[in-house]
Amino acid sequence: MKLALASIALTTLIAAPLSAQAQFAKPEDAVKYRQSAFALMGAHTGRVGAVVKGEKPYNKAAVEADVAVMEMMSKLAFTAFPAETDLPNSKAKPDIWKEQDKFKAAAEKMQGEMGKLSAAAKSGDLNAIKTAFGGVGQSCKACHDNYRNK
Amino acid sequence: MKLALASIALTTLIAAPLSAQAQFAKPEDAVKYRQSAFALMGAHTGRVGAVVKGEKPYNKAAVEADVAVMEMMSKLAFTAFPAETDLPNSKAKPDIWKEQDKFKAAAEKMQGEMGKLSAAAKSGDLNAIKTAFGGVGQSCKACHDNYRNK
Repeated sequence: MKLALASIALTTLIAAPLSAQAQFAKPEDAVKYRQSAFALMGAHTGRVGAVVKGEKPYNKAAVEADVAVMEMMSKLAFTAFPAETDLPNSKAKPDIWKEQDKFKAAAEKMQGEMGKLSAAAKSGDLNAIKTAFGGVGQSCKACHDNYRNK
Repeated sequence: MKLALASIALTTLIAAPLSAQAQFAKPEDAVKYRQSAFALMGAHTGRVGAVVKGEKPYNKAAVEADVAVMEMMSKLAFTAFPAETDLPNSKAKPDIWKEQDKFKAAAEKMQGEMGKLSAAAKSGDLNAIKTAFGGVGQSCKACHDNYRNK
């Protein structure tokens, strides 16, 4: 219950005031910001993934906390793709800015899948978590395939 | 109110299950994780700092959202200082692991100041935010002076 409120509140709070992208003094600041958000998302995805794969025992509170971080990062990362930030140290493909609508849709798809994972994590149903985690993974991969250099 | 619940819930949820440090497969993973958390904390600290310095207009929702990220990052960062992670690409001083109790106290001091800033952000009192922001800044600086290489 507390986490449900937390997630709803944070999602609402963060999506609105942080969506403005004019927050970065230099293009490289945006790159560092989104790379940091994706790094934390990746770390916590890995932790949930280990549970999903049965490599680690399922602990409801731990998975909920990991998913809460994943969800927050999935919001923050996409506030940091202002124009002209396909810098050499970024793996972002220029297509991101050529097809903004498609990129935005891909981000929203992922955030939607993340919402389902969050609900599953709160339910405590490991099978539901496994299913929702698969959906998140597919949406991550789809965006990486299209918009991220190897 | 929503943010209050969010902060309380997240603080509780994250402090407990994420405190275990045996989460990193390689030492460099811990370095990357904490550097990412500090980078996001720094970005959002800069945004609040611009308001505190009068460079940007005060918007309650935006400051609350920035402080919520700062607070979450202040928890996550300190879950990522396992032993033997004073790697060349880290600015962490070996003293962190020589005087664990002092380092932990410095982290908790900062997290306490962050709690005060969170309360001030919720109150909507800009003067209270300025005072609390100063407290956070001092606690950041104290830890940087003692435990972070230039």
